Amino acid sequence: MTAPISKDSQLRRRAEAVIPGGMYGHQSVAALPDDYPQFFARGAGAYLWDVNGARYLDLMCAYGPQLFGYAHDTIDAAAIERIRRGDPLTGPTEYMVSFAERMTALVTHAQWAMFCKNGTDATTMALVTARAHTGRKTVVLAKGAYHGAAPWCTPRTAGTTPEDRANQLFCRYNDIESLEAAVARAGDDLAAIFASPFKHDALVDQALPDPAYARRARELCDERGALLIVDDVRGGLRVARDCSWSVVGVQPDLSSWGKCIANGHPISALMGAEKARAAAARIFVTGSYWYAASPMAAGLETLRLVQETDYLEKIQSLGDRLRAGLAERAAAHGFGLRQTGPVQMPLFLFDEDADLRVGFAWSSEMLERGIYVHPWHNMFLSAAMTAADIDAALNAAEGAFAAVKARRATLRPAEKLQALLAPPPTAAPLESA
Amino acid sequence: MTAPISKDSQLRRRAEAVIPGGMYGHQSVAALPDDYPQFFARGAGAYLWDVNGARYLDLMCAYGPQLFGYAHDTIDAAAIERIRRGDPLTGPTEYMVSFAERMTALVTHAQWAMFCKNGTDATTMALVTARAHTGRKTVVLAKGAYHGAAPWCTPRTAGTTPEDRANQLFCRYNDIESLEAAVARAGDDLAAIFASPFKHDALVDQALPDPAYARRARELCDERGALLIVDDVRGGLRVARDCSWSVVGVQPDLSSWGKCIANGHPISALMGAEKARAAAARIFVTGSYWYAASPMAAGLETLRLVQETDYLEKIQSLGDRLRAGLAERAAAHGFGLRQTGPVQMPLFLFDEDADLRVGFAWSSEMLERGIYVHPWHNMFLSAAMTAADIDAALNAAEGAFAAVKARRATLRPAEKLQALLAPPPTAAPLESA
Repeated sequence: MTAPISKDSQLRRRAEAVIPGGMYGHQSVAALPDDYPQFFARGAGAYLWDVNGARYLDLMCAYGPQLFGYAHDTIDAAAIERIRRGDPLTGPTEYMVSFAERMTALVTHAQWAMFCKNGTDATTMALVTARAHTGRKTVVLAKGAYHGAAPWCTPRTAGTTPEDRANQLFCRYNDIESLEAAVARAGDDLAAIFASPFKHDALVDQALPDPAYARRARELCDERGALLIVDDVRGGLRVARDCSWSVVGVQPDLSSWGKCIANGHPISALMGAEKARAAAARIFVTGSYWYAASPMAAGLETLRLVQETDYLEKIQSLGDRLRAGLAERAAAHGFGLRQTGPVQMPLFLFDEDADLRVGFAWSSEMLERGIYVHPWHNMFLSAAMTAADIDAALNAAEGAFAAVKARRATLRPAEKLQALLAPPPTAAPLESA
Repeated sequence: MTAPISKDSQLRRRAEAVIPGGMYGHQSVAALPDDYPQFFARGAGAYLWDVNGARYLDLMCAYGPQLFGYAHDTIDAAAIERIRRGDPLTGPTEYMVSFAERMTALVTHAQWAMFCKNGTDATTMALVTARAHTGRKTVVLAKGAYHGAAPWCTPRTAGTTPEDRANQLFCRYNDIESLEAAVARAGDDLAAIFASPFKHDALVDQALPDPAYARRARELCDERGALLIVDDVRGGLRVARDCSWSVVGVQPDLSSWGKCIANGHPISALMGAEKARAAAARIFVTGSYWYAASPMAAGLETLRLVQETDYLEKIQSLGDRLRAGLAERAAAHGFGLRQTGPVQMPLFLFDEDADLRVGFAWSSEMLERGIYVHPWHNMFLSAAMTAADIDAALNAAEGAFAAVKARRATLRPAEKLQALLAPPPTAAPLESA
């Protein structure tokens, strides 16, 4: 008798036939350990079930959106109430105005908001607004930062052209000298400096923003008449009840938002200061579903929870508990574990593990013990988690460290990851043209 | 005593404070008659209510998405069921595979699908896929065609750069000679020909595709090894139960979809032929909410209705009834009314009305009589409409023609429209740089 084919395997076969490569984008498991499930069935609170029936404490929170947990009752009820009234309509509803009012009340630097769907919509609109405001083209970004998946910013360049990335100059995050050098190279053409709230690049240690770096970015923009943009799609509302650079005392001119502002209901936003309002009114951006009330109703309820609950202090406290507990257990088993980024958005990398063989093995051991962790992307805590959940994760980690230690000598490099990350010769035909 | 301020006026004032220009994009009423409401309260079936309480038979259907009418019970129930199970999750669900299977079963030319959120996502992915497939950069488009609002295609160029529009050549829709000339100019670098399913440009007469033009586009792509793309975001499922160019017997390599494929639930799609699969698997595109099951569940129920009901024959029949009835009434009142486009996606323009004064006046008269029409954008019929609804629209039209005829000599040009459409000197600072 052969083993039955799992539902996940069945779905992968079906997907292979009708979806290029079987899956695409950040939710493809192509660069995750082999035992990670590709398909899921449902989520509730802090938990996630895959199609094979396994339950996980989910430290990814849908790659961010689930700030208050899966299937949140009052947030989802607000969205559903609007769906039942017809959504989208031929024009916007009162919810669009109310949500813009509530977002601008929350975000210190912003006097206006424009809603869209993808995080990439919001970052692209920020770029276009800065160019419309300044009449200039050049933007300075940090090398390796993720700002979305449009042709101007997507991390894999297949099908994009050199022109898509024209007028971009790069610096190193938190390196004031390299920032100043890039700005100097921009000369009279600096439209904007584009900043992540903290360094949250995949595959490398995260870094909190150096306040001096953030202040220098602000000064350089003011000196040059350029706009400072903070891309808060990933960090927003998990770092602060405000734009994330408020924690270092720096206010940008524009900020992009998405993911958890409506706890997973599809909406993103560009927010801006008064001086950028006229430019924002001149650009033309739109989308078929951008005016739908349902995600705005969900967003209003999400913001109520943001303002009326201690969700932020809670996820920070859970993050502290997780970080301290993991550090202790890693050390006890002789592992050098680097935990970086804000405690509520952690990334774990092992010392002397350039090919991620240890990271992959440990993540698989965690998964097997019911804890969904990511071996090379920052994770996200939610307010649906409890101290008991974190303790369960720590218990699992104890077993995972022991198991990896026992088979460390036999671990192989994570080849599928290396193959994906090394740019194949055909990956960017147009860049070599 | 002064008249009370309407709820719509109150909301416009509040919006003015927190949204640039008070509203943006295609659902702004900045270029519609003054009496058009900006804010709406709800929709049900074929009807729409504004925030002041007025009810309209809505010939816009949310600018397309509402193919089966507002607040459709079984479609919305499918979406809501998934929201209650947590949405989005940390990975896709079975619904993504099923929806790709059903879409590829429906669309003759396509063997695979990739889902996204905006129509613009799908058109941009088509462009990137064609470039990845061919290793070339140049795309041929029809002048004036709308393919979305990203920097490479947005109709208002403020904040965009010449580089954003590099590698584009233009022809005239349905003009074989101009298509051949553009392809010849592309030389060895032709990546794709991008086609609307019919000419649905705003402000001008629509045109159905000339089969010879569509066939020539197919031939030219085959001769050059380029990809033929049909942008079916607007026309899809209202022209055919297949890609819209199937009605002229031409199969593209790629097609973009959106709007009504899930009856307004937020999802769009790029669909493609086998030969483009490898290229589609190499590009990197993604979005925070792209894997959410709720719109896919709604899409599955929408496709069931597409395949099991006579919705298409019904909206065509309603469109015929509307077109014939309007033609008769316009002629009786001495108006030259040009009704163009497919009958189920009509656009109405008046003869000798370059500044749209008659069109604006007539649309206002229709609105006042409870029929929401658009003076310069194609409209959309839905399967929730009935012959009685169309007859109500025709009765309203009778009154509207009579009213406009009576005050024709006093009509003024639609100045707000002219102001918006004439590019102001500051509209594109970067194009003159």
